[in-house]
Amino acid sequence: MFITFEGGEGTGKTTLIKDIAVILGELHDVITTREPGGSMIAEAIRDIILNPKYKGVTPYTEALLLAASRAQHLDEVILPALKQNKIVLCDRYLDSSLAYQAHARGLGFDFVLSINKYATQNMPNLTFYIDLDPKVGISRISNREKYDRLDQETFIFHEMVREGYLKIAQMYPERMVTINGDQPIEVITNQIVQRIKEAL
Amino acid sequence: MFITFEGGEGTGKTTLIKDIAVILGELHDVITTREPGGSMIAEAIRDIILNPKYKGVTPYTEALLLAASRAQHLDEVILPALKQNKIVLCDRYLDSSLAYQAHARGLGFDFVLSINKYATQNMPNLTFYIDLDPKVGISRISNREKYDRLDQETFIFHEMVREGYLKIAQMYPERMVTINGDQPIEVITNQIVQRIKEAL
Repeated sequence: MFITFEGGEGTGKTTLIKDIAVILGELHDVITTREPGGSMIAEAIRDIILNPKYKGVTPYTEALLLAASRAQHLDEVILPALKQNKIVLCDRYLDSSLAYQAHARGLGFDFVLSINKYATQNMPNLTFYIDLDPKVGISRISNREKYDRLDQETFIFHEMVREGYLKIAQMYPERMVTINGDQPIEVITNQIVQRIKEAL
Repeated sequence: MFITFEGGEGTGKTTLIKDIAVILGELHDVITTREPGGSMIAEAIRDIILNPKYKGVTPYTEALLLAASRAQHLDEVILPALKQNKIVLCDRYLDSSLAYQAHARGLGFDFVLSINKYATQNMPNLTFYIDLDPKVGISRISNREKYDRLDQETFIFHEMVREGYLKIAQMYPERMVTINGDQPIEVITNQIVQRIKEAL
């Protein structure tokens, strides 16, 4: 079972995934991974995408690098784990490219789907979208020590990302579950674990 | 004027471009550049594509990284130079992805053209394809001190690359000029300079 987690900055995905993996891990074989990155080559690509030193990365380049890192991560990490019947919990996947690059950057759904042809052939069974007002999300990350290139985007950009996600959730109702991100983390964790158990 | 140079390994493109730039430079403003790479970000991507340390790069990832590096190189180097009315001589461009990734790796022309949408909107005015039997080309590079990941491909792969180029030359006869690479370098240089002068 392939499960992805989506949302803007500061939605607490990293902690959520860690907690859910512990709970599910009691009964199942679970791996957690993240995008962009997740393998040596994909992490090298991640560094180009997120390192503030490469601030000149253009929207086209960014979308293509993300698709490249995703293709590599699929072959090296996700598909082998699924073959071994593991539950894969992945922080971000194709929907991130649709929300950030297709919608917020304006590259369009057709182009972003076409460059992600390999990922569209390997879609998640379930996707949890943690919906949160960017005002709340950004304030949560404001005490981070390091900001990556995307954290530094304008507030309007993060509003566009949320708009993109809400659109995608309507496009793929069969696999996308929208979760209210403005609740205590234990409540969110329980809601998600419940939903996964139903699906198993 | 945007001019690209294409061909397999050991066709002498690097020396050719250097010599042609000197001759054309007497009367015109010329810049030389190369793919993958040509700018700080594009060179960082080049390193992932060619470094033998990343030998696990999959065909999809490779094609997407090349398209990413191309988009970046276009915006940072090629388009600004063309705006200043310079002659741009570029070692490899879209046709390399068609010969290597679409044909030799078997990803298909449709997919490779779709991920290179930005490059197809900015096509060269002239492309010189230096055609050479891979047996001759490979023997020429056999005394190189370092081999990159693509140099290490099988002989059959390099035969497929040549087959791909010959197909592309038929597809785009209006901009592609096929040059016999099995001639002294001065002869090839003169043929190409002549053809560029006619076009100017």
